[in-house]
Amino acid sequence: MGQGPVIALSGGVGGAKLALGLSRLDLGDELLIVANVGDDFEHLGLTICPDLDTVTYTLSGLSDQEKGWGRTDEGWRFMESLGQLGGEDWFNLGDRDLALHIMRTQALRSGESLTAVTRTITRRLGIAAPIVPMTDDPVRTMVQTADGPLAFQHYFVRDRCEPVVTGFDFTGINNARPQADFKAALSDPDLQAIVITPSNPFVSVDPILNLPGIRDTLRAVAAPVVAVSPIVAGLAIKGPAAKMMHELGMPTTALAVAEHYGELLDGFVLDHGDGDQANAVAALGVRPLVTKTVMESLEDRENLAREVLGLARDIGN
Amino acid sequence: MGQGPVIALSGGVGGAKLALGLSRLDLGDELLIVANVGDDFEHLGLTICPDLDTVTYTLSGLSDQEKGWGRTDEGWRFMESLGQLGGEDWFNLGDRDLALHIMRTQALRSGESLTAVTRTITRRLGIAAPIVPMTDDPVRTMVQTADGPLAFQHYFVRDRCEPVVTGFDFTGINNARPQADFKAALSDPDLQAIVITPSNPFVSVDPILNLPGIRDTLRAVAAPVVAVSPIVAGLAIKGPAAKMMHELGMPTTALAVAEHYGELLDGFVLDHGDGDQANAVAALGVRPLVTKTVMESLEDRENLAREVLGLARDIGN
Repeated sequence: MGQGPVIALSGGVGGAKLALGLSRLDLGDELLIVANVGDDFEHLGLTICPDLDTVTYTLSGLSDQEKGWGRTDEGWRFMESLGQLGGEDWFNLGDRDLALHIMRTQALRSGESLTAVTRTITRRLGIAAPIVPMTDDPVRTMVQTADGPLAFQHYFVRDRCEPVVTGFDFTGINNARPQADFKAALSDPDLQAIVITPSNPFVSVDPILNLPGIRDTLRAVAAPVVAVSPIVAGLAIKGPAAKMMHELGMPTTALAVAEHYGELLDGFVLDHGDGDQANAVAALGVRPLVTKTVMESLEDRENLAREVLGLARDIGN
Repeated sequence: MGQGPVIALSGGVGGAKLALGLSRLDLGDELLIVANVGDDFEHLGLTICPDLDTVTYTLSGLSDQEKGWGRTDEGWRFMESLGQLGGEDWFNLGDRDLALHIMRTQALRSGESLTAVTRTITRRLGIAAPIVPMTDDPVRTMVQTADGPLAFQHYFVRDRCEPVVTGFDFTGINNARPQADFKAALSDPDLQAIVITPSNPFVSVDPILNLPGIRDTLRAVAAPVVAVSPIVAGLAIKGPAAKMMHELGMPTTALAVAEHYGELLDGFVLDHGDGDQANAVAALGVRPLVTKTVMESLEDRENLAREVLGLARDIGN
């Protein structure tokens, strides 16, 4: 492909897989990975950015392929001792992972931006593609549940996604400015594509889309907006997306995800298992592409990345 | 022994050994261990209290007997990853040890006192004897050297005690209030003894003695003040005490330690190897006791503790 930026909007695991695929397609500096920060939180005095870190670990080759999160060769002595001291131990922080949280927290406290410290860390880990937070301002996802509002990680980790979801709020979103490189790429006349990776639509992608001006920009921009369905055969590959859809009264289908993104979309990638929904997607005015979206191997990640960019190019022509 | 408090002033390793011995003598609540905080420092955004922690780990049975500091079954994944990320890695923080620093830092930042968080941690670890910081106010030892002033841990760990020492400053000492239990024990009419453990006189004990009012109180108090020499046969058992004495133009002898504490002292414990200095100690008006001060076994720690209290009792009678 060509000369202008490709923007990938990413949450955690699923998004990071596709971001890794994209990063291996020779896009060089043209690829900009924008990570959700809505699931960031303050814990034990540390600022923890799970999505940003999953993308960072995935692209650096340090991620634990089996667990799907965190680092390989991770140790748990810190957690064990924290429990022994009576500390708050519902959120697992690996011994290796802690180094990143401690460095970042110190940098933020000394006045550095999340963008700057993320750049320091990703460069140090040899990652070529720029990874940026969606904003340098604090945005925190609150999950509205039948039991009242919950901070995202309390819902997600501490309460194991058990409470019934009724909606979402993104605290701070109205005052959050889209990150500078993200904003610049969106207004680049050569912008090639915006890729919405197969992350959770409600808590990984919507925080990015809800940043002031972003929805309007994506509607207006000439470059195609292409999403990959995180729902395959009625199930989420990982995480609570399908459970949330059910609780929100939506069908747990790829089509419902396309409808959720609505008029933002120009293209939508469905798995072979959902090929029967392609016509309904097309009826929304969105170009469907049916392919293998389940990314098991590194080759799967690269292939899907290639197909997504191919769809974007086809739409652009 | 009897009814009133025994106060032990302690630095790190040597002091913690004697404190452990004292804690095994059935003194119960009467033992109050007062730890130096002059070597505390802020590092990577964490508040680290090496002496307090060495005492805590030693009395809880969690300390690494071979290394002489830190925790047993310690891991180093955090340090390895910190180095990989380009972080400041001159001070070793073990994976287990980190749990304490993170819990404490969070507690201090939320407004808890060092006393309160230390109590929470020591109780949780099943330590019966109260361990308190010498003060809840920040005091930081600065080492004056031929190359200029150095924060203590920069001198001690980063620069491996190599710079030539010319003196010491204790930043914040004039505004530091002696910790409440320490102050109360000092004014207890039943106070039995004040034990100066065999820690470094300049950087472990002097910060405690230099707290406003403490020297005057120790001079005036009826209870005997008894010190154990950290210098044996011209050498420090551990750490830079002998090197410092040499650089400050003092003889590197037990006697010089007794002279350094001067008129505060009522009793002084020397090792068999320094028995020839007992008369000179007596000539200072200080009752000498010659015994085995090198604490190799747990039994050594208990025996020395018993002898120190015996000396105090003899002086008191």
